[in-house]
Amino acid sequence: MNPSMHIPPFDEALRARLQAAVDSKTKPLGALGRLESLAVQIGLIQNTETPALTRPAMVVFAADHGIAHAGVSAYPQAVTAQMVLNFIAGGAAVNVFCRQHGFALEVVNAGVAAPLWAADTPGLIDAPVGPGTRNFAEQPAMTAEERDRAMALGAQRVAHHAALGTNVIALGEMGIANTASAACLMARLCDVPVAQCVGRGTGLDDAGVAHKRTVLEAVMAKHADVRDPLDVLACFGGFEVAAMTGAVIEAAQRRMIVLVDGFIATAAVLAAARVVPDVLRYCVFAHVSDERGHRALLEVLDARPLLSLSLRLGEGSGAVLAYPLLVSAVAFLREMATFASAGVSERA
Amino acid sequence: MNPSMHIPPFDEALRARLQAAVDSKTKPLGALGRLESLAVQIGLIQNTETPALTRPAMVVFAADHGIAHAGVSAYPQAVTAQMVLNFIAGGAAVNVFCRQHGFALEVVNAGVAAPLWAADTPGLIDAPVGPGTRNFAEQPAMTAEERDRAMALGAQRVAHHAALGTNVIALGEMGIANTASAACLMARLCDVPVAQCVGRGTGLDDAGVAHKRTVLEAVMAKHADVRDPLDVLACFGGFEVAAMTGAVIEAAQRRMIVLVDGFIATAAVLAAARVVPDVLRYCVFAHVSDERGHRALLEVLDARPLLSLSLRLGEGSGAVLAYPLLVSAVAFLREMATFASAGVSERA
Repeated sequence: MNPSMHIPPFDEALRARLQAAVDSKTKPLGALGRLESLAVQIGLIQNTETPALTRPAMVVFAADHGIAHAGVSAYPQAVTAQMVLNFIAGGAAVNVFCRQHGFALEVVNAGVAAPLWAADTPGLIDAPVGPGTRNFAEQPAMTAEERDRAMALGAQRVAHHAALGTNVIALGEMGIANTASAACLMARLCDVPVAQCVGRGTGLDDAGVAHKRTVLEAVMAKHADVRDPLDVLACFGGFEVAAMTGAVIEAAQRRMIVLVDGFIATAAVLAAARVVPDVLRYCVFAHVSDERGHRALLEVLDARPLLSLSLRLGEGSGAVLAYPLLVSAVAFLREMATFASAGVSERA
Repeated sequence: MNPSMHIPPFDEALRARLQAAVDSKTKPLGALGRLESLAVQIGLIQNTETPALTRPAMVVFAADHGIAHAGVSAYPQAVTAQMVLNFIAGGAAVNVFCRQHGFALEVVNAGVAAPLWAADTPGLIDAPVGPGTRNFAEQPAMTAEERDRAMALGAQRVAHHAALGTNVIALGEMGIANTASAACLMARLCDVPVAQCVGRGTGLDDAGVAHKRTVLEAVMAKHADVRDPLDVLACFGGFEVAAMTGAVIEAAQRRMIVLVDGFIATAAVLAAARVVPDVLRYCVFAHVSDERGHRALLEVLDARPLLSLSLRLGEGSGAVLAYPLLVSAVAFLREMATFASAGVSERA
């Protein structure tokens, strides 16, 4: 990581001015609810009373996980590569929602196991750290050097989009078995039993969930001594997860809004926050998913998700779906009349 | 009401085809959560496997309430007219969100007490049923004839927009004291104590809420014998509420999507559903507001709101905020690749 890393603090005097601006609008105090706190947060992130959202970008990091070989997913590992091709062809949910909301969409091969015939396709950044991680039921998923390369990859993609004018970055992921990775990260970094973090992923049945839980309980016992956050990330993470962790830290340093998707993206934020807690100020949590563990993880991070739609897809799909609420928050702050300007009476 | 009124039934064979189309998309079964049931509902409403949303329109009905003179609102009655002018000038929250999402916005004076100097302003339909309703603490808010005129006004505005190509209609309202009206409608039509339906409205403090509750408990006792749904609507409704009730029925007859805003709009839907239960199939409930009673009212209607953002503004603001989710539901159904078309493996 960048040794000169610095997450800019928020200007508390600006916070008061933003709140006063919100309260001056022609509506009862607090009547726009969650949009009001969102408007204040975005103003603080951008350090201005007149925030604006520019060139929203979605980066979907894809990678494979050795733990998939332990039978913890309802889908075969080949699906990771197949879905990367689907992203490139424009047919996945995240493509549809990115088109709807004007997101630039980039797909990053951070370490897919199968060869990608489309390596030179526009829209694909082909930068695998390796052909998937090792199976952390047997050994740490990656080395410290691999973790640092994955984090640097994520940071580099954020820097690329920042240079193009992006000030809202959404992070998506694809990786068969990566809910297992996220569950282990959550268990260790939040110090809770992994059973509380294990969900159905792409759709395991009860027996599948029981098997996944048994496998991951053994994993946690095997790696019981791994405690340092960056060591935890290397032990249980995926290349796409570590890339997202690096991306979050880079984006916060650049005062960008980080629009956080579901369980796996939140686990990547958790890892970032255990290294640099202030990154959380720059995060907007898009939704709470149906994946077991996500709600509890959001609570640990004191995060208030914008949507609750029983999504459990990943890809960054939930992040893009929440984006129009950010636009609304900025728009009401900039465009609504005040009681004074509109000649509307205040409270009796 | 139209004696030939007929709410078209849904085609259950189409429901199965829509669900199969949803399940063929490249995502785990059910992974788009609430968007999936929304896509199926919209397909059934439009009676097609390829639904589309055209010319979304917001109609904001404004009217005053005699019960405002009983001191049940935090704001003076003059604010109703002032906010109508704010809508016309483009400065209210609903204006901002309508611009964001490309809604046609129409403001209807259904019965504002104060004169509106802007009666001939483009964008305002000036069709007051009367100068506000009577105070239902003393007598029914309106006559049966006034109720029918208000309902016809709502139906007429829906027909107007349908003729212009609208197939999604959102209904908004402005009327100081109309949470009191909605609370009484809910209490009587759901047969629950009015105390469970009384909230802070535009921001009453605890003493204000206690006063409102006392006033409305006396109101319910005074009109204890009013039970027929249309009589209940005349007794406790507002001109804007009855207009919305008429609008909902008209829209359902025309197979339009009714995008329902907060507590007051939901109370208008409740009145419609007590007359014609099938209108509920055509309703999409945009959000659950912070107004006490709204969550319980949605449960009575078996409604699953899309958003929960602690909004309590009205104007139709929450309905417009939810609209992009409807766009997403239609878009994923039309645009996402299938497992077969994308060559993605199904479950192991």
